[in-house]
Amino acid sequence: MTKTAPPAATPVSLITNVRVADGRHVDVAIADGRIAALGAALPRQDAVRIEDGAGALLLPGFVEGHTHLDKTNWGLPWYRNEVGARLTDRIENERHWRARSGHDAGTQSLALARAFVQMGTTRVRTHVDIDTDAGLRHLDGVLATRDTLRDVLEMQIVAFPQSGLLGRPGTAELLDRALAAGADVLGALDPALIDGDPVKSLDLSFEIAQRHGKPIDIHLHEPGEVGAFTLGLLLDRVAALGMQGQVVVSHAFCLGALPERERDALLERLAALRVALLTTAPAAVPVPPLAACREHGVTLFGGNDGIRDTWTPYGSPDMLERAMLIAMRYGLRRDDDLALAFDCVSSVAAHACGFADYGLQPGARADLVLVDADTLAHAIVARPPRRLVVSNGRVVARDGVLVDL
Amino acid sequence: MTKTAPPAATPVSLITNVRVADGRHVDVAIADGRIAALGAALPRQDAVRIEDGAGALLLPGFVEGHTHLDKTNWGLPWYRNEVGARLTDRIENERHWRARSGHDAGTQSLALARAFVQMGTTRVRTHVDIDTDAGLRHLDGVLATRDTLRDVLEMQIVAFPQSGLLGRPGTAELLDRALAAGADVLGALDPALIDGDPVKSLDLSFEIAQRHGKPIDIHLHEPGEVGAFTLGLLLDRVAALGMQGQVVVSHAFCLGALPERERDALLERLAALRVALLTTAPAAVPVPPLAACREHGVTLFGGNDGIRDTWTPYGSPDMLERAMLIAMRYGLRRDDDLALAFDCVSSVAAHACGFADYGLQPGARADLVLVDADTLAHAIVARPPRRLVVSNGRVVARDGVLVDL
Ligand SMILES: [Zn+2]
Ligand SMILES: [Zn+2]
Repeated sequence: MTKTAPPAATPVSLITNVRVADGRHVDVAIADGRIAALGAALPRQDAVRIEDGAGALLLPGFVEGHTHLDKTNWGLPWYRNEVGARLTDRIENERHWRARSGHDAGTQSLALARAFVQMGTTRVRTHVDIDTDAGLRHLDGVLATRDTLRDVLEMQIVAFPQSGLLGRPGTAELLDRALAAGADVLGALDPALIDGDPVKSLDLSFEIAQRHGKPIDIHLHEPGEVGAFTLGLLLDRVAALGMQGQVVVSHAFCLGALPERERDALLERLAALRVALLTTAPAAVPVPPLAACREHGVTLFGGNDGIRDTWTPYGSPDMLERAMLIAMRYGLRRDDDLALAFDCVSSVAAHACGFADYGLQPGARADLVLVDADTLAHAIVARPPRRLVVSNGRVVARDGVLVDL
Repeated sequence: MTKTAPPAATPVSLITNVRVADGRHVDVAIADGRIAALGAALPRQDAVRIEDGAGALLLPGFVEGHTHLDKTNWGLPWYRNEVGARLTDRIENERHWRARSGHDAGTQSLALARAFVQMGTTRVRTHVDIDTDAGLRHLDGVLATRDTLRDVLEMQIVAFPQSGLLGRPGTAELLDRALAAGADVLGALDPALIDGDPVKSLDLSFEIAQRHGKPIDIHLHEPGEVGAFTLGLLLDRVAALGMQGQVVVSHAFCLGALPERERDALLERLAALRVALLTTAPAAVPVPPLAACREHGVTLFGGNDGIRDTWTPYGSPDMLERAMLIAMRYGLRRDDDLALAFDCVSSVAAHACGFADYGLQPGARADLVLVDADTLAHAIVARPPRRLVVSNGRVVARDGVLVDL
């Protein structure tokens, strides 16, 4: 029995004395990157590398359900936001700024992805801009980041037509190429209010996705009744094309601003077609109602959206902060309610995105976070530095600092 | 010319090389607890104790406009919130819990007040529960904290009838005694929905305040039309009794949920009577509209409300976090807009509460915060540890750690 502090990014085979949600102190045995056992006083005989959990709270690795790694200015000098308020202002501003600033999606996505790992996130779904100015340049950068971190961060890439699908000829072909080049999911954007032709836009998106056998994750910012209209068209196609369980609607602000009867009819369809919703829980706009989603069996999960980019100064690679913002947005105060907000950035997000082998049960990938907190709610509001982050069975961060990756 | 790093909580006479909002690098000379000069390359001759600002961003000490130091569980084991959702559930739960838990307002308010100072807040308005169970016990504890920290934290105490003014006989007399014993402001609570008699409740509150020549800060959670009704009654009394500029309405959720014409009529009266509004910028309920308040000349400032108590798991003594939440709640993204959110927890809060000699100009109290951030917006979203906090001309925290106070 050897007790050795592991060097950088090396496998760990036993973590002793961690607390789980119900307060029990347990050990976690790890083998081949997976949880082999979780229980009291596990045998030390075969454990080569042991970490002392010191009674810290054990959480599963966090899941970022929606970000834009390719856009971020993380680690760069502060970007001074002087952008106009319209969606098209922001789209134009970003495309021009990227062209002239030398912003590099590879460098930037790696910097932010590393920060995610450092703070305990081991699975990320990122949208990546595909447009006729940049072609697949941003995708190439993010693919390089995914490859660099492949052992410690599972990444899904969404090929995202940020400048619209119909307005700039050649975009559909680029999306085709992006899916062929390694993107996992087809993105889309406001078929009515950006593309101006919701039927044609949706039909083309579903055609591209089906050609590649890939799921869809659509940005739907369209508000109120127009959003509801577009969402109805989308659900028609999910049903007609048999894409149940393969579509995510990101933002879906419209569901926060409809008459209850109309909203509930959409929630029923979303549940039946297993279409999931993603929210960043923005404080300033309507959001899909968490309680009603739960009642109707609609999956609602969480993410940052952009982090410190030309769109927004906000966002953080600390998914505990996102859990806090989700909990605050939905007015949750009780400990059992805050646990629902954590689910949005952990198990529910993994389920919605299709990240496999997630959780704290034997057989799951050994993606583990240890924090000094009394309870889960305490961890969410205090967001202490991560005492230990294990990804895929390897120690990737210790005392808030990333090990050499 | 001696350059000596000051020991704990000792005066500093010169801070060199800090950046101000417009990007200039300046020095700050300090004498007798005040800013003596602020400019480029100030003379070092008379400076006994010099701090090297190292190019850090200089901000004025922060202002907490509304908290409850006496209620907090800050530093205690996590309080597991299993409380019901109604306001009266929360009031009853807290009073019972305090009676049986041994919670001590003196110990707790000191712990949280020290955390405020550590993170750069040098002025605090705190509400303190006055009720017929506890009498003035909580006030005594907070008065002791105020005395302990008198050199480094300016504190205003609001005598707050958390259990209502009319429902429990003897409360008015306790408020009288609290104001005589050192409370600076009379508090009040939902005259219609808690007290059940808005006219009688408001008349009594104004009578008590006027008897002591003290201002009023009322918690007004009442929603929509009933809140508007109560607010109208309150404004009638401000006008009739000549209390212009001496009343704060905390929360004022109603102003976020009225038809625009009715809302604007109230905003005009608020401006004319110089009645200020306090918001915590809660994400889950309506809030007074920042833009409309600015258009009408209504002062809107910010605060936490309770911090980790039996009411709420949220809140932080870091007022940069509150600035971020305010900015997010109002959908602010541009750098110049984020500066408005910072104003809510600095200059505007100081003005609304009547904290004197506030700011970065010569003659102001030397309450200064240095942070490693490119700009103010960067400081708000990154909330880095405070490199240096100076209060009343003394170094009170360094590199995120409180000096011995
Ligand atoms: Zn997005
Ligand atoms: Zn309050």
